[in-house]
Amino acid sequence: MRTFVLWSRGITSPDFNLNDLPSSGKRIDIVARCIISALWLSHALRRDTRIYAVLYGAPEPPKTVLFTPEIKRVSPDERSIAIWLKKALNKHRGRRDKEWVTLSNGIKISGKSFQDVIKELADEGCSFYVLHERGKSIEQIEIKENPVFVLGDHKGIPKNEEAFVLRKGERVSLGRKSYLSSFCISVIQWICDNRGIK
Amino acid sequence: MRTFVLWSRGITSPDFNLNDLPSSGKRIDIVARCIISALWLSHALRRDTRIYAVLYGAPEPPKTVLFTPEIKRVSPDERSIAIWLKKALNKHRGRRDKEWVTLSNGIKISGKSFQDVIKELADEGCSFYVLHERGKSIEQIEIKENPVFVLGDHKGIPKNEEAFVLRKGERVSLGRKSYLSSFCISVIQWICDNRGIK
Repeated sequence: MRTFVLWSRGITSPDFNLNDLPSSGKRIDIVARCIISALWLSHALRRDTRIYAVLYGAPEPPKTVLFTPEIKRVSPDERSIAIWLKKALNKHRGRRDKEWVTLSNGIKISGKSFQDVIKELADEGCSFYVLHERGKSIEQIEIKENPVFVLGDHKGIPKNEEAFVLRKGERVSLGRKSYLSSFCISVIQWICDNRGIK
Repeated sequence: MRTFVLWSRGITSPDFNLNDLPSSGKRIDIVARCIISALWLSHALRRDTRIYAVLYGAPEPPKTVLFTPEIKRVSPDERSIAIWLKKALNKHRGRRDKEWVTLSNGIKISGKSFQDVIKELADEGCSFYVLHERGKSIEQIEIKENPVFVLGDHKGIPKNEEAFVLRKGERVSLGRKSYLSSFCISVIQWICDNRGIK
């Protein structure tokens, strides 16, 4: 199973405007595009990938939303994904605990932090790769089974969070250009498909 | 200069609902995501790429919208792009001619057909690559300077249109999986960056 973990400054309440995802949602549009790139093929959901979006925006950080291949009734466009993020955040309003709450269509939300998620994935035996322009070229890196790719939103991952993952993994680079997070996910998925990584 | 040409069933009037791009716009969301993947780096527009979206939906097909590195005041999220597509289609309402009309921010629209666009690009001396699952692997293909990558929306390119381009170029494949068009564009951009293709 491939895993993506997105560290995001996205809003942690449902009080964002679907007609203005970039500003009112603190770049919830980025979260939505990353989910699309990670999970969708042309006419189907991938069966080999899940994505955790860890949200650190106001007012109740952190909240982690998990999209797996088991989700249903979600379309691969920004607004549809954002509607589901809003439903998830609404269901979890006022909560701080770390239990997963599951929506009717399979999307999950909890109060887990980024480090909670990384610890859980480490306990599963996953391998960690942190996307960074100055990492080792992905073409020179062996990607092991059950890889976890960690990346940040438009402002990147805070240093202490990155350092936490790097105790368990390594920095990997797609090149010196700084790409959109969703762009990076597409490229990584393609490379993993090509190499037959599970 | 890299060029993408997207053959789309997108609507050719501005009468679509910004709150329902997939249905009311005949997958204008796909067009928007392709434009984002083609033109944006993390915090800047690429200076090396343009994208033509050729729309064949009702009521006034065809219409071609051209996004170049000269565009201004466009944000890389689906709704922002769709707002500009709506403005372009509104400006061109009722017209059938092939002159380019330029919006205040540099986006262009005309009544050019897919084959008109391909002919113009051939006159510029471009090389043509048609995305297709059963094409030759992109890793075995030399991508020449000024490449044009042609791809379809979720239903693909009509056979006669594909045949027209294939007289000037070849089929190229990213693998046997059928990917989202925007996903394909991200992967191609990354490969071209890696190879230093201009």
